[in-house]
Amino acid sequence: MSLSTLLIIVLGGSAGALLFAVGLSRWVLARDTGTPEMRKISDAIQEGAEAYLRRQNKTIAILAVLVALVLAVGYGLIRDSIPADPVSDRTLLALYITLSFLLGALSSGIAGYMGMWVSIRTNIRVAAAATRTLNDALQTALRGGAVSGLFTVGMSILGVGGLFALLTMFAPEGTDAGLWAQKIPFLIVGYGFGASFVALFAQLGGGIYTKAADVGADLVGKVEAGIPEDDPRNPAVIADLVGDNVGDCAGRGADLFESTAAENIGAMILGVILFQSFGVAGILFPLVVGAVGIVASIIGIMSVRIREDEDPMNGLNRGFYLTTALVSVAMFFVCKTLLVTPDAPNAWWYFFLCAMVGVATSVAFVFITQYYTEYRYRPVQTIADASKTGPATNIIMGLSVGMESTVMPVITIGIALVSSFLLGKASGIMVNGEAAGGLFGTAVATMGMLGSAGYILAMDVFGPITDNAGGIVEMSKQPESIRDKTDRLDAVGNTTKALTKGYAIGSAALAAFLLFSAYLDEVRNYTGQVLHVDLSKPPVFVAALLGAMLVFWFSSLAMRAVSAAAQSVITEVRRQFKEKPGIMAGTDKPDYGSCVDIVTKGALRAMVLPGALVVLFPVVVGVLFKQISGPDERLGAEAVAGFLMIATVAGILRAGFLNNGGGAWDNAKKYIETGVHGGKKSDAHKAAVVGDTVGDPFKDTAGPSLHVLIKLLSTITLVLAPLFI
Amino acid sequence: MSLSTLLIIVLGGSAGALLFAVGLSRWVLARDTGTPEMRKISDAIQEGAEAYLRRQNKTIAILAVLVALVLAVGYGLIRDSIPADPVSDRTLLALYITLSFLLGALSSGIAGYMGMWVSIRTNIRVAAAATRTLNDALQTALRGGAVSGLFTVGMSILGVGGLFALLTMFAPEGTDAGLWAQKIPFLIVGYGFGASFVALFAQLGGGIYTKAADVGADLVGKVEAGIPEDDPRNPAVIADLVGDNVGDCAGRGADLFESTAAENIGAMILGVILFQSFGVAGILFPLVVGAVGIVASIIGIMSVRIREDEDPMNGLNRGFYLTTALVSVAMFFVCKTLLVTPDAPNAWWYFFLCAMVGVATSVAFVFITQYYTEYRYRPVQTIADASKTGPATNIIMGLSVGMESTVMPVITIGIALVSSFLLGKASGIMVNGEAAGGLFGTAVATMGMLGSAGYILAMDVFGPITDNAGGIVEMSKQPESIRDKTDRLDAVGNTTKALTKGYAIGSAALAAFLLFSAYLDEVRNYTGQVLHVDLSKPPVFVAALLGAMLVFWFSSLAMRAVSAAAQSVITEVRRQFKEKPGIMAGTDKPDYGSCVDIVTKGALRAMVLPGALVVLFPVVVGVLFKQISGPDERLGAEAVAGFLMIATVAGILRAGFLNNGGGAWDNAKKYIETGVHGGKKSDAHKAAVVGDTVGDPFKDTAGPSLHVLIKLLSTITLVLAPLFI
Repeated sequence: MSLSTLLIIVLGGSAGALLFAVGLSRWVLARDTGTPEMRKISDAIQEGAEAYLRRQNKTIAILAVLVALVLAVGYGLIRDSIPADPVSDRTLLALYITLSFLLGALSSGIAGYMGMWVSIRTNIRVAAAATRTLNDALQTALRGGAVSGLFTVGMSILGVGGLFALLTMFAPEGTDAGLWAQKIPFLIVGYGFGASFVALFAQLGGGIYTKAADVGADLVGKVEAGIPEDDPRNPAVIADLVGDNVGDCAGRGADLFESTAAENIGAMILGVILFQSFGVAGILFPLVVGAVGIVASIIGIMSVRIREDEDPMNGLNRGFYLTTALVSVAMFFVCKTLLVTPDAPNAWWYFFLCAMVGVATSVAFVFITQYYTEYRYRPVQTIADASKTGPATNIIMGLSVGMESTVMPVITIGIALVSSFLLGKASGIMVNGEAAGGLFGTAVATMGMLGSAGYILAMDVFGPITDNAGGIVEMSKQPESIRDKTDRLDAVGNTTKALTKGYAIGSAALAAFLLFSAYLDEVRNYTGQVLHVDLSKPPVFVAALLGAMLVFWFSSLAMRAVSAAAQSVITEVRRQFKEKPGIMAGTDKPDYGSCVDIVTKGALRAMVLPGALVVLFPVVVGVLFKQISGPDERLGAEAVAGFLMIATVAGILRAGFLNNGGGAWDNAKKYIETGVHGGKKSDAHKAAVVGDTVGDPFKDTAGPSLHVLIKLLSTITLVLAPLFI
Repeated sequence: MSLSTLLIIVLGGSAGALLFAVGLSRWVLARDTGTPEMRKISDAIQEGAEAYLRRQNKTIAILAVLVALVLAVGYGLIRDSIPADPVSDRTLLALYITLSFLLGALSSGIAGYMGMWVSIRTNIRVAAAATRTLNDALQTALRGGAVSGLFTVGMSILGVGGLFALLTMFAPEGTDAGLWAQKIPFLIVGYGFGASFVALFAQLGGGIYTKAADVGADLVGKVEAGIPEDDPRNPAVIADLVGDNVGDCAGRGADLFESTAAENIGAMILGVILFQSFGVAGILFPLVVGAVGIVASIIGIMSVRIREDEDPMNGLNRGFYLTTALVSVAMFFVCKTLLVTPDAPNAWWYFFLCAMVGVATSVAFVFITQYYTEYRYRPVQTIADASKTGPATNIIMGLSVGMESTVMPVITIGIALVSSFLLGKASGIMVNGEAAGGLFGTAVATMGMLGSAGYILAMDVFGPITDNAGGIVEMSKQPESIRDKTDRLDAVGNTTKALTKGYAIGSAALAAFLLFSAYLDEVRNYTGQVLHVDLSKPPVFVAALLGAMLVFWFSSLAMRAVSAAAQSVITEVRRQFKEKPGIMAGTDKPDYGSCVDIVTKGALRAMVLPGALVVLFPVVVGVLFKQISGPDERLGAEAVAGFLMIATVAGILRAGFLNNGGGAWDNAKKYIETGVHGGKKSDAHKAAVVGDTVGDPFKDTAGPSLHVLIKLLSTITLVLAPLFI
């Protein structure tokens, strides 16, 4: 297939997805917006969320411009051009890297903003739809989520594909088009770095915001004052609802945007290695898969409908299975069309099997996550049991379940990585006489897993939308029957949020190798030598130790940030209760704005240090170990690789532990609320609330931020590799 | 220095230490045993502890004999002898490996038993001494601890040295004595494996026992019934006091025994590599350092005395600094005498500096651990602060502090490993024209750190002895002034216990490389090729992921075991309170024996699964990856190395997190008990009790078991290496 046909598919598919998202958002916005009481609450949420995101984006923009300046000066003025550079003019190189960084950062910011923009407008429409039927509310919420999902994934593919298309026009004179196409992926790595950079701060800031508000509101409202969740008398309640949007929607949107961007670029670099076999089709393969995956996701999303008495999760599961089935079929044709070479006529079949490994992995992760976080199964039930003897045993058991929940995912990922590697190796693709398809096999598996990303993200944003809808219904004092519907959707939303995290961490683990390989490949490009990452060298081992430590340090800072910001919310709510006794009596209105303001400031202040740590740490490791390196040892580059790989291992495990542990605690509480072990207000319930509160920063701050951390480390080392050599 | 002179120093030093320990134990036993009430309690503790250890040792003995059979059959009947084997007759090889395994297992069991034997006899003598002076009680407790410390370290050196001496007499005919000396360390690796094997189960079983009893007694006694700690009305109180002995004394004794044994053997294997330079002196260097280290520890221990109004910790610190100073001086002479070679006349000086790096590391770890676990400093105070807003924020902050506490230790270890490696490399020692002293440098640093092991272990056993003494004083209703003295000693004991754990994990981290290298060296011996552990190969990466996962899985099982066993204690205590209302009124006696029995059964049952997991996992990894290995890839051996190294990284970090987090929670509670934030009975105190309870299985079950896990993985892979090739 020719380059232009491929680009038409990629750009057409992704632009089509964006158009569809626009259409879907018009459909959602055209729905009715309920009663004036509902609108008042929704407006307050909108206002708080937009004000926060404006300030957060301003802070992130300043940081991003700083990094862009460092990149521009470093590559354009300080560093000397070397022959291995993708372009020989260093000013041009600096321009490409800096501009793609800024473009990635901007796109990531837009993806996050869009996610929130839609969600704060959909919440009230879901609340209004719940006054009619459950199916109506479900469809509204899912399609609202889909706007964000399609927009994010579509823009990621359009961004990378568009940059690629643009650069094909700027081939240096006398450079063959094929050769130039092999250099382009190395020029746009900055796009992935920019996207990850913004996503880290968005996920961190949003994650700290949402959990500080949630923990603060719960501790002082539910525990101290004894008022229910989402009670309008709680001054922190609007901040809590705002948090769902800026954390779960904006943060997760930026996260999945950077995931797809970084992983696509990494896979394209692996495609470069197989250029002799597949030509430019191998390089653009990931983007083509992404484009057809969006179409599959759209069909899946639009197919979802449920009966009024049905568990909404069943409807969502049917849509997911339809999407994966479509992705599988599409993969068959894409592999058969693009991955053809006369040297290995059956290679496409092996790679199709790799893609199936990826699809199977995505389904396995959905099952495993459900097992560990739903109260139908043993793990959550043991936590609920342990709550009978108080908060301490609840916490011990929750930690134990969280740690255990890493076992099956690691085994799944291990099987997926090794089997796709061996399948790729057996495909018959050779480079310099050696079987060379192994790593590309793992990349194809990742693409197979990411094919359903649009659907998954739609399910994810469904969570905060229904959570908000429930809040609006509660605060506007709607009848019990309506609250029942939003409660059912909210419970499903908790599950879908847990599923997305499992999926995100699974795809990050599967993609990890692809990103390492991109780094190793870049080092090989620069040095002309294959870089082995030999742990049996003490400095490499020490770098590995530092990588694992970074994950601990970062998690510690993220948890502490939530705790500190929550403390200030608690102090403020106590102050309001004390100064205005009328609030509790319902005669005086609480000042929601001051809580929103306090959390905003706290989150923005707290996100800078952990974020900066992640950006600076790999640079320090690389530069320090370069100093102690003997000539020709390349210890700097090797230490960074060891650092990156073990940080990834530690990050995958810890994120799984945090996400699943947090989800399990949450649902153990919900399980007790169904009436077991004494139900609401029992001692077991009080113990379970403690576990749930501890789980909050686990699953919504530290855990999701670690997903981004893993990819940020990969992209930053990719962009800065020349520094360490 | 000749082989026989060296052996005389080693065997003489270690035998002298054992004799001294016997003398010290006579001194302790000759002290008075207080009032009849005290004796009654002490007798109950003795009885429970001995009954438990008998049953535990029986279970472990069965498991050990099973493993010995597998080793004997595997090496003697199934596996064919190959030329690289240290002895050519496979029956003889099987005999050496199996016997040294059994001897190691037996010695480890004895070391643990001795630790407990002394401690359950010292506790009452400390209680009696506390009726006189604080100094008297301190000296009694420390010297009681020293019996265990000297016995453990002495027996470890005597065991390894004695085996070495014994085997020198069995050189095969026609083999040169020097060549034979180089083979001996590979023949006695089974000793390390046996010691680690027993230590794992001892530490696990004891750790589960002690914390199940503690958590159970606290939750139902302090929280539900509102009676103080160590109250004689609590039916679980004797089980709790028994736990201190079987967990902290017997478990830790076996742990440090296997540490010194495994690390000495590993260092001897590194000495073999430098045989051309240092001859047999290089091989026996670790044992000589150990022998002189014991002498330094004895002097340090006997020097400790305090004024009546002084903080007892100051006295213990003075003793520690004296010991490290003596170790430093001794190291100078040992390096100068043993590490001499005409090829590199200054090498000894570089290695002496490596030893100083080790000594400095031990001091740094003492400081860092104190900073994170004493309430004079920020970390513990922030946890106490967070307790004001309830148990949830206490837990979040405690987890955050625990994670943060891994930062400085990792940086310290990183500096120590890299600097001792570079110093060793710069020493001028060459093998085949390449600088080869680097790894030996890290071994010498480890020896420098381990020089004070005898003193550290004495300080450690001091902890449970004083804890027990306090319990005896409380239960026998002694006057407040005596309880004050034992309380002060108990508080110091908490600190020393935390310090030992920091020291143990630090030395495990420093020694990690030495043990990996021994494994890599063995693989090189067998295959004739240097094994690089290349993480950029997907299967090696997957093995690394599995290694990190094992640490999560194991921790999960250990935590759950405590929780399950504690539940059964709670049920039993509730039953007794219900059936005999006279217990609470003081008119009826609780049935201590039934609680002891329940915890015994629970701990023994619960220790088998996690223990078996650790033993089988590396075997499965090695054998599986060998299957997918291409010819000449040695993927089995390489995957096991990656697995081992990343399990070690994950284990070091997680153990640090668990130990320090647990210690910090404990002292946050104690800090509040001094009167801050409302003092005892306040809400903050209740929240802090929850944190303390969560921290219990962290710091006394999962954390210490991970120390042993790390070394067990090293020794098991060392013994089974031929399987994976």
